[in-house]
Formats: sequence, C-alpha cells, structure tokens
Amino acid sequence: MFSPLVAELIQGLRVLPGVGPKSAQRMALYLLERNRQGAQQLADVLARAMLDVQHCESCRTFSEQSLCQLCASTARDTQLLCVVESPADILAIEQSGSFNGLYFVLGGHLSPIDGIGPHELGIPQLINRLKNKEVTELILATNATVEGEATAHYIRESSKVFGVKVSRIAHGVPLGGELETVDSHTLARALNQRQRYA
Amino acid sequence: MFSPLVAELIQGLRVLPGVGPKSAQRMALYLLERNRQGAQQLADVLARAMLDVQHCESCRTFSEQSLCQLCASTARDTQLLCVVESPADILAIEQSGSFNGLYFVLGGHLSPIDGIGPHELGIPQLINRLKNKEVTELILATNATVEGEATAHYIRESSKVFGVKVSRIAHGVPLGGELETVDSHTLARALNQRQRYA
Repeated sequence: MFSPLVAELIQGLRVLPGVGPKSAQRMALYLLERNRQGAQQLADVLARAMLDVQHCESCRTFSEQSLCQLCASTARDTQLLCVVESPADILAIEQSGSFNGLYFVLGGHLSPIDGIGPHELGIPQLINRLKNKEVTELILATNATVEGEATAHYIRESSKVFGVKVSRIAHGVPLGGELETVDSHTLARALNQRQRYA
Repeated sequence: MFSPLVAELIQGLRVLPGVGPKSAQRMALYLLERNRQGAQQLADVLARAMLDVQHCESCRTFSEQSLCQLCASTARDTQLLCVVESPADILAIEQSGSFNGLYFVLGGHLSPIDGIGPHELGIPQLINRLKNKEVTELILATNATVEGEATAHYIRESSKVFGVKVSRIAHGVPLGGELETVDSHTLARALNQRQRYA
C-alpha cells in the first residue's frame, strides 16, 4: 500500500547487507519524514563512490587515486609488508598503532568452492612484489579462521623461493579475556605457543 | 585509513536509522566489493524519491501523485475513515484484509514538548473533512501508547460537534498470546472490556 516510488525506494534499500523488508521500510519512511537532505547527500556520495572508487595499484585496497594514501606515503617502512583479507583489517591494524609498514589486501581468502583462487586474491601480484627484494618481512595477518589459515599457508609456501622472512600474527587469549570464557581451541593454541620469560 | 571518498560514503550511510560506524563501514565495503550496480540503483531511487515523493492531498500518506492509490480508488467505502499515526500502519491494516474504507495519516502523535500540536498532525484538515458529512464513522487507530491514546482522545473531542460516529480499535490479549506472558495493563483492559457472548 505504498506508492510505486516509495515501494521502489524500500526495495532499493534492501541491497544493503543485513537490511530486510521491515528495516528497509523503516529506513525509507524515516528518510522521507525526517532527513531528505541527508538522503540526497547519501544518493550523491553513493553514485560518486561506485563510479570513482577503484583498487590501489600497489596494495589493492579501495581508493579513488591510483595509489592509496598509505602506499603513496614516504613515512612508511617499505621493508615490512602485511597481508590482510579486507580493507577493514587495515583500519583495525592502523588503530592498534603498532605497525608502520605497508599492506597488501587480498580481498578475501582462498575458497575453491566459490571459484576464489590465488589469481582472484592478487597473489601473483604479491609474489611479484617480493622479487625486487625491497620487502624483507612478509607478515601474514589473514583471519584466524580455517580459510584464513589455509590462505596464509599458501602464501607462505609460494614465497619460500624468495628468501623473504615470513611471519604470522600471534594467536592466543585476547587481552582482558578471562580464561574460562575463552574457547578450547584458542586455549590450546595459547598453551602450545607459550612464550618463555626472558 | 580509508580513502576520502570511501570515508565520505561510510559517513553518508550513517543517515540511515540504526546504522552506526561499524555497520556503515560494513555496508560501504560490501557495496564496493559485491554490488556496485545495486548501489547505483539505490543512489538513483533515493534521489528521485526525495525529490518527487510528497504527501497525498487527501490522506497525507506519502505519494508521488497528488492523490494516493487508495484515495484515488473507486472501490473503497468513503463513509469509513481510519486515522493512523504512520503510513506503515496503513500497510499493516491493509494486510489484515478487514478494512475497506479510507485512511488519514497524522504523521505522528501529539507531543507538545517536541512542538507537535494538532496543526502539525493535520487535525484541522481531518476535522474539515468531517464537515461535508460524507464520513459516517471515524475509526481511531493510533498506537496503544500514552501519546496515541491522548491523540485519539483529542480527535474524539474535536469531532464531537459533527455528530459523526467515533470508534477506537479494540485493545486486549493478542491472538495466540498466552495469558501469563501478557502484561498486566493489557490484561486489565481485556477484563474491563470483556465481550458478552451473544
């Protein structure tokens, strides 16, 4: 019982992840009632971003420039290269404030069943980058999932011939985590990879 | 660590109700990675809807036509007028399949503290409509909240002079509801307004 254009708007909002029919309806009515200007601005930035945002030629993160800000920066340590699954992971690591190297974004993990192999993840481009010997350490920061581990393993094997140091981020009990709330796989890993006091 | 345009897109998505920084980031990356075409269509319909969707001249619901589909229909009983708070309520009542009259959308409820009085809710327009005596019954279907009750009460008082029959939708135990899970106010109402078997 919504007008055709309102119904089309509700349907259009359902492209957003996690937005079902009820949420889309609530969003459409909210925007029409309360924030038409904000919605106009959203329409404008959506159109521009979908047109202009491409991948950084160097690290494959999203960027409207051919080189992203980090890759174009002269303040970063170009000997360290950290491999992540998603652009969101770059944000998380940058916010930790403990990494000053460059990144490489896979854009996912190996998933043969979905047709996602090394080529789709840009792994040939990554390997190519190791050839000029500028990178001395490759840090694998894919997710701590089965797929993330498999992807890290694949990259580790592929990069062996270049003599580059390859490392994996540490896994274990999160800071502030209480032991009784940590799952047993994580606890097993934390015990196996215990660090001896210096 | 997102490029300026991606950051602008994330910010733009936050105009949507219930979308915080994390959800906006997830939506932006999802659209860029997976569904640029859908996002372009969303941008297009957002822009058109914000520009073209206005209020139906007769019932005040959202419509890009001067008269909405229901008000323009010749199949509806023009003697029954149902007053609701929001266009979403029309959808809910239509889906119940038990009303064939016309609607009037207040677009909220009386809330003096927010500066929402009878004028903002179009109550003068509603009262005006009672003058030509076409409407024989006014059904008040505002929400079963304190504000919805107050708004219904105000409209009931304002329409007394026109001799129109005024009714309020029934409140009580919802169908399928178990008594022990129903709140005590609703139970009290259900007891007070018990219906005698014919």
